Amino acid sequence: MENGGGGGGRGDVPDDANEHCPGTQSEDAGKADACAGCPNQQICATAPKGPDPDVVAIVERMATVKHKILVLSGKGGVGKSTFSAQLSFALAEMEHQVGLLDIDICGPSIPKMLGLEGQDIHQSNLGWSPVYVESNLGVMSIGFMLPNPDDAVIWRGPRKNGLIKQFLKDVDWGEIDYLVVDAPPGTSDEHISIVQYLQATGIDGAIIVTTPQQVSLIDVRKEINFCKKVGVPVLGVVENMSGLRQPLSDLRFVKSGESGEADATEWVLNCIREKAPELLSVVACSEVFDSSKGGAEKMCIEMGVPFLGKVPMDPQLCKAAEEGRSCFADQKCSASAPALQSIVKKFIKPE
Amino acid sequence: MENGGGGGGRGDVPDDANEHCPGTQSEDAGKADACAGCPNQQICATAPKGPDPDVVAIVERMATVKHKILVLSGKGGVGKSTFSAQLSFALAEMEHQVGLLDIDICGPSIPKMLGLEGQDIHQSNLGWSPVYVESNLGVMSIGFMLPNPDDAVIWRGPRKNGLIKQFLKDVDWGEIDYLVVDAPPGTSDEHISIVQYLQATGIDGAIIVTTPQQVSLIDVRKEINFCKKVGVPVLGVVENMSGLRQPLSDLRFVKSGESGEADATEWVLNCIREKAPELLSVVACSEVFDSSKGGAEKMCIEMGVPFLGKVPMDPQLCKAAEEGRSCFADQKCSASAPALQSIVKKFIKPE
Repeated sequence: MENGGGGGGRGDVPDDANEHCPGTQSEDAGKADACAGCPNQQICATAPKGPDPDVVAIVERMATVKHKILVLSGKGGVGKSTFSAQLSFALAEMEHQVGLLDIDICGPSIPKMLGLEGQDIHQSNLGWSPVYVESNLGVMSIGFMLPNPDDAVIWRGPRKNGLIKQFLKDVDWGEIDYLVVDAPPGTSDEHISIVQYLQATGIDGAIIVTTPQQVSLIDVRKEINFCKKVGVPVLGVVENMSGLRQPLSDLRFVKSGESGEADATEWVLNCIREKAPELLSVVACSEVFDSSKGGAEKMCIEMGVPFLGKVPMDPQLCKAAEEGRSCFADQKCSASAPALQSIVKKFIKPE
Repeated sequence: MENGGGGGGRGDVPDDANEHCPGTQSEDAGKADACAGCPNQQICATAPKGPDPDVVAIVERMATVKHKILVLSGKGGVGKSTFSAQLSFALAEMEHQVGLLDIDICGPSIPKMLGLEGQDIHQSNLGWSPVYVESNLGVMSIGFMLPNPDDAVIWRGPRKNGLIKQFLKDVDWGEIDYLVVDAPPGTSDEHISIVQYLQATGIDGAIIVTTPQQVSLIDVRKEINFCKKVGVPVLGVVENMSGLRQPLSDLRFVKSGESGEADATEWVLNCIREKAPELLSVVACSEVFDSSKGGAEKMCIEMGVPFLGKVPMDPQLCKAAEEGRSCFADQKCSASAPALQSIVKKFIKPE
């Protein structure tokens, strides 16, 4: 049976290498006794040694980028892309120069969440130009490169890694303060590659987004261990969808009768207005996801990483994400925007 | 700029092949004129031709499995694993012999959702034995193979593909009616591999799980196009988390005052009991995810695939998933279980 854990280990020893592999960068690569019969022998013996010239190009390109922040999650659908998008809006509002890079190759959500669907990337002699939401907020995603937004990107790892490398090497971000990198869920090709390619340029750290339930927290623990293993500091964990909050008067109501269910919203609201108008101003809360085991905060203590705060599940925030709007631009997201703002302030230091 | 779409095409032409590639299975592979300079030339020229012996072994192993159903989603966190788990419980309750295979290698949720955390896989001379929830419901997941559940599985594609192949080749399911395969989100290694390995054995089709909002539906369209491209029939689309439904009396309430927010649940419920007790029996609904654009049902019509139904967001279903219980075993999941049951009946034909 395979050894499930690990597989990280030394960066230059392939997963399927023989025991006592000298490493792909060694002078003995492909030639040592231990290489006999290894599936990589031929490639190792012939591949050029020394630093990857692409990594050198990436270091040069990233010289104009002050801070690099990865946004990760163990599970999908926890609101990671929503967080990345709103973090970028928040940084831009603080008058920073911001770049947002989407490395979710098979399911890019960033173009929609920034209101940039249908936009194209342009090329100049300086490289690929990001698509700009504001003059200080540029975005790059494979979503801008698909002839048809419904097209499936049926790519295995190496091709995904190739595009991520190109994004890092060829996108002309200009002088920016923050590059926010939105990763897909998991700990596989995209994650190993982005860390490998960016490590030499310095990564400030990773923000990990989760929901409160155990099923998501299990995967967050894996993600934190991934960060520890590859040497990326964990800036902190954000608990998203931390209970639904909605004014009572925004809810709909149904009533079961003999003939099935019927909408009763008008009836309920009239009844409240008449008999108990003091209830119209209360906010209804529902713990959609079970957080009885302590949620992300408790896990952070156990794992020794900072807990950045909770963002309630807010239908208005979902709507802002759907429409590609900043939740800070108006007062609609009153249930979630202040929470997001205070989280951002915890890890972004004023210059 | 790369051509984003596609990459599927002929199965035996690598993504990075030269034009006029004769195909990796051709007698000319690596030797044709078109192969000069192709990065795959050496491998093609030396690799054994003909059917993959592993696929032959998989066909033999799958001879005792009547139906194979893939559960897919475009985005993560839409409740795909919850659906796979409850589908398996439902099939087992209908007295079918059921196997549930988790091919989410980096974020396996299935062991927890079936109440099987901490279980081990055993080996016999017939292969790897699944872990059994009931005598007619066996489960296989990398989650059973991790020495420590927090360990990150930091694997690139080829190693993930290797384990999926082993699952298909070496797990001793016995004579079963249904094999439910729970895939991670996306259209990459795991998806290409499972289809490639299982295609010769016959795949009944795929169920695609989504949430109602556009951000998720965009990715579902990609997933449907993936199925069309690789020739897997779409059995239908399930819209999950289709609005929250909860008895009014199960909600919590807060009130804002001058000194901040305070819990007002008791006060609100007392107020209702006294002044409007008729409200205690109503069910509160909230459209957490914006479905104003028609949700999954409209998309299914556009894409020409069956719509199987909606499952409301039900905190009790989340709780059942967290605790690894069937939602059909008692009456707690009254908001979601009937919806799930009617969905299952739509694509499972009585024998």
